[in-house]
This record gives sequence, structure tokens and C-alpha cells, in this order.
Amino acid sequence: MTADAGANRQIRLARRPVGEVRAEDWAHVSEAVPVPGDGEFLGRTRYLSLDPAMRGWLDDRPSYLPPVGLGDVMRAGSVVEVVASNHPKFQVGDHVVGAFGVQEYALSDGKGALTVDPALAPLSTYLGALGMPGMTAYFGLLEVGALKEGETVVVSGAAGAVGSMVGQIAKVKGCRVVGIAGGPEKCALLTEELGFDAAIDYRAEDVREALRTHTPDRIDVYFDNVGGPILDAALTRLATHARVVVCGAISQYNNEEDTVQGPANYLSLLVRRARMEGFVVFDYARRYPEATAEIAGWIGDGRIRVKEQVVEGTVDDFPETFQMLFRGENTGKLVLRLG
Amino acid sequence: MTADAGANRQIRLARRPVGEVRAEDWAHVSEAVPVPGDGEFLGRTRYLSLDPAMRGWLDDRPSYLPPVGLGDVMRAGSVVEVVASNHPKFQVGDHVVGAFGVQEYALSDGKGALTVDPALAPLSTYLGALGMPGMTAYFGLLEVGALKEGETVVVSGAAGAVGSMVGQIAKVKGCRVVGIAGGPEKCALLTEELGFDAAIDYRAEDVREALRTHTPDRIDVYFDNVGGPILDAALTRLATHARVVVCGAISQYNNEEDTVQGPANYLSLLVRRARMEGFVVFDYARRYPEATAEIAGWIGDGRIRVKEQVVEGTVDDFPETFQMLFRGENTGKLVLRLG
Repeated sequence: MTADAGANRQIRLARRPVGEVRAEDWAHVSEAVPVPGDGEFLGRTRYLSLDPAMRGWLDDRPSYLPPVGLGDVMRAGSVVEVVASNHPKFQVGDHVVGAFGVQEYALSDGKGALTVDPALAPLSTYLGALGMPGMTAYFGLLEVGALKEGETVVVSGAAGAVGSMVGQIAKVKGCRVVGIAGGPEKCALLTEELGFDAAIDYRAEDVREALRTHTPDRIDVYFDNVGGPILDAALTRLATHARVVVCGAISQYNNEEDTVQGPANYLSLLVRRARMEGFVVFDYARRYPEATAEIAGWIGDGRIRVKEQVVEGTVDDFPETFQMLFRGENTGKLVLRLG
Repeated sequence: MTADAGANRQIRLARRPVGEVRAEDWAHVSEAVPVPGDGEFLGRTRYLSLDPAMRGWLDDRPSYLPPVGLGDVMRAGSVVEVVASNHPKFQVGDHVVGAFGVQEYALSDGKGALTVDPALAPLSTYLGALGMPGMTAYFGLLEVGALKEGETVVVSGAAGAVGSMVGQIAKVKGCRVVGIAGGPEKCALLTEELGFDAAIDYRAEDVREALRTHTPDRIDVYFDNVGGPILDAALTRLATHARVVVCGAISQYNNEEDTVQGPANYLSLLVRRARMEGFVVFDYARRYPEATAEIAGWIGDGRIRVKEQVVEGTVDDFPETFQMLFRGENTGKLVLRLG
């Protein structure tokens, strides 16, 4: 019923970043480890999730979630181990995934918390392939993108947590898949390990030109994680009735307010009778179990490989690790493992 | 069997315009009036259609139609009166609508030509409310926009040929309708004559602010004819699951190549789970009769008013009349009536 002794280290939002997030935007705080009340449990963080979408949560503007409040513990998905519990459904020793924030210890009333089985899959998988990025890839590609067998799929941010899943799911569905990523290592990963048909290195190649080469039948589904010039290049290559899935725009997240680069080639939507559609994965929450089961099956039979980049550290390493996402330094799902 | 005597005045494309179309981009040419061969008829132009989309046909880039060739007669829809015929389906005195080009006389084999009845509606109507702009409004709003009763519709270029029909069809369908147009006269037309619930004068008002006032329940369907900053303003006001219908972008047509202003607020599509979709009205050609009948019914019972701006002149007045579209000088469908 009592927690481990010691302090609860936390990362809180100290001020709203303008452009790139700086060290000074975060406060490193120590609090007493809380004690769970009735109907609560205390979890100790094992794995912290780092996602590009977190950048958006720092801005004070209307979005699909309220912004993280100034002074609040930074919002983050994580896997915790229950170390004390007055909650009937969560027992000491359970592993639980939820939005517990960037802190060593988290108190929870169990809302939005899900017990996971470390025997079925490594704990970190529940933040990646079987977590939000996997759900995002699955519903974005199959529902919003309305993917059909034999179509051509192009995905940007292809070596990232979402992109690597998008491409592999599209291959399972019998599609031609082209990934766009930064650097020869990531591109080699896509074609040699993950089964993509082609990879385009946006740092070394003219993306528009390379798309012409690698999508002889044009693009049926473009799954966009990056925005900016790569989105514009893809728009020039759409097939009739193409679907552009707007999942993210990591190239634009660190822009200062109101300077997002809009897709200048959006009139291709008209010429190609195409659509561009956004979505928020939480809307599909009721169908997560179905998607999780299907993805777990594909992982089990080797058709999907889980790509993760695990950084070992403490809660205090969160700010620096977070920046890896915007420098293109991670391959696959980026997690921080607390020692 | 012989044509009227005299010359056939024509407007041909002399060079490809860069930015705004200039007088020098056109050639004014006289040819002998042609004589119809077997299976052909000769029509004398009565009404010429002037449409923003024609600007796009002048650029040498891939689109839904091939560009007008250098030296070719400018492509245009028109209503002609048959003055000579060797075609079994078209008799002298018939009125025929088709893409006969900017010329006084046109030879046709009847392909894409449709006989219309001047007793049922004024001839010019077949270029507007019962022609391409009417079809564009009808299928764009009801099919691409998937409009539902009780929704809020915003349309830009609202006093134009397409926009004035979009707003009125949306009113027939029981929607709240806000039109965006330039100048107090056009705005008064929308609310006082055409039944719009509100009008925003983009020259005098902050469109984003005005949309907040006039769309208390946000925007379910935004029908865009203009692109640029007005599209961006509308994107900030989308409702959940909104549809943005990309019909045109008249504010961008005269830009020099590759300088189209992309919608910087396109990430609203993500936050609002919304879609932006383009279309080409020709794809609905098989359903024109159904739409024409329905619109004619609405005109007949007074629920839709036909707005037209008829310029009297000759084929040589085409270039100057065409520019009215880009200066916002027309209200409703712009036609050139040949005396």
C-alpha cells in the first residue's frame, strides 16, 4: 500500500516554446512520491513514449486535445509498473499503459489505463506497433486512406514509428509501397528489412523526380507525416481519385505561429479528383482491440517487423531525447527506458 | 446548305500568358465562313460563355483537359443557331449548346452538341444555371460536399455563376448559407435577392472574424471558388467532419507558374477530421439531365433565381470581357451576346 521511498522526478512545461523547443521551456522538478487514495494506484514509469504530436500539445491553440498547461507535468504515453494500489483492477506488479506523463511515478484512477502482458510482447511494443503509432497507421491507411489491394502507397517519415508501420501494413495488403526518409541507412532499412518496394532519400534526391521513377502508375494513397515540400512533391504525382491522408507535418511543427507552409500544389486535388483528409486516431478507440489483434498476428507470423529505438536514461533525459524526433535521429518508435 | 455570307471572326491563342492575360496574348483573325460537309452543321454564335476555368486552359501543364494549342481558336462554350446543316439531327434554326470556341461561326459534327429549347428557358441560361456552372454547383455541393439538411454552407465567389447557384441550392436543401463576395452590391444581392442568410464582403471585412460571427455552429461544407487567403480563413472555422469542396481558385489563376499560395491552415483538416476534395464536373456528364431537370424545376417555382450579366458585343470583345472575371466585375454568369 505504500510506494517506493524517494522523490518523484518530473518534467513540467515551464513556458510555451516558440519554434524549436529549448531546454529552458522545461522545468525539472522533484516532488514527494504520492500515496494512492481509494480507487487509485501508483505506477512507476518503465517506458516513456516520444511522439512528434507532442510538439503540438505545447502550443496554446485549439486542437484535438487541450494544450498542456503551463506548469503542468508534460503529457506523455508510458508503460508503468504498479507499485502500490487501492484500485480493484490493478495489482502490484501489473504493467499498465496510459497517458501518465513525463514523471517517474504517476498516480492514476485507472481511467484510460490498460493492463498489458509482457509475456505477449515486449513492453515497449505497447507504445509503438501495438500502441498509438500502430493504431494511427492502421486506421489512417485502411479507413481514411481506404486502401485497396494492388494500389500504390507512398509514405513520408517512412522510417518513423507510424511510417514504418504504414508501409508494412500496405505490403501485407498487397500494395506497391514507396517510402520517403532521410539518409541512406533509413532507406536501406525500408527496402532491405521492412519489404518496401523502393525508398527515396529526401536529403540526397529530388523527391518529385524520384516519385516519377518509383510510381509508374502514380500514387493512390499518400500518407503524409511531414508536410512541407515533400507533401507538395507527392501532390504532383497523384492518381485519379487518390487519397492524401494527413497524419502529421513534422517539418512544420517547429515553425513559429502562422508560418506553416501550405501545399501550393493542392489544386492537383481538383485535376485528379482526389481528396485530402485528416483524422485523429482517438476517434477509433473502440476499434483498437480489433486492430491490435490483427497487428499482433502480423508480428507473430513475421510479416511485420517492429522497429524501435530505445534510449536508456532518466526522466531528466526527456527534453534532449524529444529533440531527436525533429532532427530525424530516430529510426522506428522512439522510447525512453527508465533504468 | 450554304452559310451566311461574310467572314468568320475568331479569337485565337497567340502566345501563352504569364500571369494576367494581356491583349497581345490573343490574335484576332478573319477566315472564310466554312461550309459544312457530310454529317456536319454550321452554327452562328449567339452567346459565348466566359468562365474562370478558361484561364487554366491557357497554361501548358497537365490538367483535366489538354491546354488550348498555340494558334488554335480559343476553347469556349457557346450557344449557336444552326445556319446550314448536313447533319440529320440538327436543322437550320435549331439552337445548340456545345464547346464551339470563340468565333462567329463554328463547324460541328454534332459531338458534344445538344439542342436546347429557347421556349423553355432563355438561351443564355443554358450556359449558366442550366449549363456548366449549374452542373458544377449541383454535383460539387451535393455529391462531393455530401450536403445534409440543416448544415452550414459557406461559399466563396458567391455572386459568381457557380457561387450564386451553390448558395441557392443549399437554401433549397434547408441549410444555413453564408456567401463571401467583393463589394456591398454583390453582398446585398446575396441576402436580399438570393436568400442567403448572411454575406461577407471580403474587401471591407476581416473574413476570419466575420465567419466567426456568421457561422455559430462552424462550417460543414465550404465550397471554394477562390483559394488564397479566403480559403485559409475558412479552414480556421471548419466543423468536425467538414467537407471542403475545391472547385476553383480564381485568386490564384493569374499567378506566375509555381507561385500558387497553398492553404497554410490545412492542418485544420486533421484537427477537425475534415476532408478537402477536388472534382471535375465532366465526370458527372451522364447525370446532367437529372440535375438539369431538378434545377429547371427550382427555377420554375421561383426557389432559384438566375443571375446573369450579359455583355453585348462581337467576338472581338472577348478578351476585354474575359478580364472582367478576374477583376470581380461580373455578377452571376458572364456571357457575351453577339449582336
